[in-house]
Amino acid sequence: MILTVCLNIAIDTTYTVPGLVPGSSHRVATVGARAGGKGVNVARVLTSLGQDVVLTGLAGGSTGAQVAADLAGLTGLAGLTAELVPIAGESRRTMAVVHGAEVTVFNEAGPLVTAEEWRAFLESYAGLVAAAGVVVLSGSVPPGIPASAYAELTGTAHTAGAAVIIDAEGELLHEALAQGPEIAKPNANEVATLLGRPARTTDDATEAAELLVKHGAKTAIVSQGAEGFVAVTPGKSYAVRPGRLVHGNPTGAGDALAAALADGLTKGQDWPELLRNAAAVAAAAVAAPLAGDFDARLAAELRNTIQVEEV
Amino acid sequence: MILTVCLNIAIDTTYTVPGLVPGSSHRVATVGARAGGKGVNVARVLTSLGQDVVLTGLAGGSTGAQVAADLAGLTGLAGLTAELVPIAGESRRTMAVVHGAEVTVFNEAGPLVTAEEWRAFLESYAGLVAAAGVVVLSGSVPPGIPASAYAELTGTAHTAGAAVIIDAEGELLHEALAQGPEIAKPNANEVATLLGRPARTTDDATEAAELLVKHGAKTAIVSQGAEGFVAVTPGKSYAVRPGRLVHGNPTGAGDALAAALADGLTKGQDWPELLRNAAAVAAAAVAAPLAGDFDARLAAELRNTIQVEEV
Repeated sequence: MILTVCLNIAIDTTYTVPGLVPGSSHRVATVGARAGGKGVNVARVLTSLGQDVVLTGLAGGSTGAQVAADLAGLTGLAGLTAELVPIAGESRRTMAVVHGAEVTVFNEAGPLVTAEEWRAFLESYAGLVAAAGVVVLSGSVPPGIPASAYAELTGTAHTAGAAVIIDAEGELLHEALAQGPEIAKPNANEVATLLGRPARTTDDATEAAELLVKHGAKTAIVSQGAEGFVAVTPGKSYAVRPGRLVHGNPTGAGDALAAALADGLTKGQDWPELLRNAAAVAAAAVAAPLAGDFDARLAAELRNTIQVEEV
Repeated sequence: MILTVCLNIAIDTTYTVPGLVPGSSHRVATVGARAGGKGVNVARVLTSLGQDVVLTGLAGGSTGAQVAADLAGLTGLAGLTAELVPIAGESRRTMAVVHGAEVTVFNEAGPLVTAEEWRAFLESYAGLVAAAGVVVLSGSVPPGIPASAYAELTGTAHTAGAAVIIDAEGELLHEALAQGPEIAKPNANEVATLLGRPARTTDDATEAAELLVKHGAKTAIVSQGAEGFVAVTPGKSYAVRPGRLVHGNPTGAGDALAAALADGLTKGQDWPELLRNAAAVAAAAVAAPLAGDFDARLAAELRNTIQVEEV
């Protein structure tokens, strides 16, 4: 079983409008709403990949109830179980207003989580992780959760014998590195503080990945969007490039990458095979309109076009 | 008891952002959410005016549950009872993004209501209206509800001996006029189709009010925003002007006016007194940041500055 953690779970709302004019009123043509947050996207992709997945996180209020109802609908379809810990606060919403080719996004910060609620989560997590082969820790955390959160969750996973993939940034990532996660997977923007500058080139991304390993990650993958990613593994380093450009919505491609890495780890694939598959799934996710979806047929088609080169 | 009808009930969400840049991502600084829709605003103002109010409408899904929970909180405070008829569809949300002095609004259309759900509402309404002295019919209706809706609700109210105030536009208003509502109260923009042109001047507004009476309204009031309103009553016609300009949020001022008209009708006030009070409440509502709120002390202060002139 793969355990995915989404501490800042959300309802992702999508409005379609003909155009966006600040200061005026708009009739919304179509409304979409579904459970979201990076960890939820990861869980969706893993479910599509045929994995047995448990999704955990914090959920509260009417938005939390809506998240639970949406996930219950998914559970009926596939191997996804949601084990959400209740909180008193109202879970957040995100709002994406789609106007023509542009998207305007509004992100709520999330509810304040109390120390007691965080302790209840840690207790629940310790029970769930005992049955997990891989744990994926994704995204930001709501107010009230300490910066040491992912470090603590990584330590607990290792004690239980589970491998950890962390896709986060800032203090959450930096503190977790000392616990030696199996894979750290930030994107090029997210390593800017670590590197002291944005990672613009492949050399920058490689240097950032080496720094992540120096700080404790066993393998570090720094993604560069449509250009692919670099991977510094315990043995060798690789540059992984898509063979062709996929047009669409890049939101969620990083989550698809994290999911595919977890999939590969559970299957015991060697690094070149694992990285090739992961790059294909991430690229195929770009073609899907909604984060968390991907086209399995497209992923299979793209797989042979991916270039995996030792660097 | 005053019965307020809100067929297109909503959760009104307010986001505060430092600035709005189409095509980019925004962190939301503050989030507000409460039950809304014109009929809900009317019910809030009537409750503040000390009236015994029953609010009815259609509510469904997680948004409907959030509306019911919010109204239950209000019920504890004052004389408001919510009698919402359940529907299968998801009640709508409205989103107001506040950036500096500007507000950008997104309005969902509302859920599709089935013929069976509409019949269930009519049955519930017939029971509620039996105890009402005045019924207020406000705003748009969700898809699936016939254009004859307010005509039918007006007829049922009259059979039960209740007076009707209608604040709507288009076919909903036009069909209801034939049933002789006690007061029709559109705003100057909403009478454009009736008049064949926008009502820009007091003469235009008076002409529109006379047309509303000609089509069946016993009294017609056409509001002109900050300039006040004109009233064509069975005896005389009046121009009602605020004595001083109130700055703030005009959203909801029309609902406050409808509420104050209902308040005056139940108290049997003569037209000049009723119109003066109503204008003061509407003007005071502009000073309140949220639609449905008004400052009773400011309304009392403004009352003496209102000019009510026969025309």
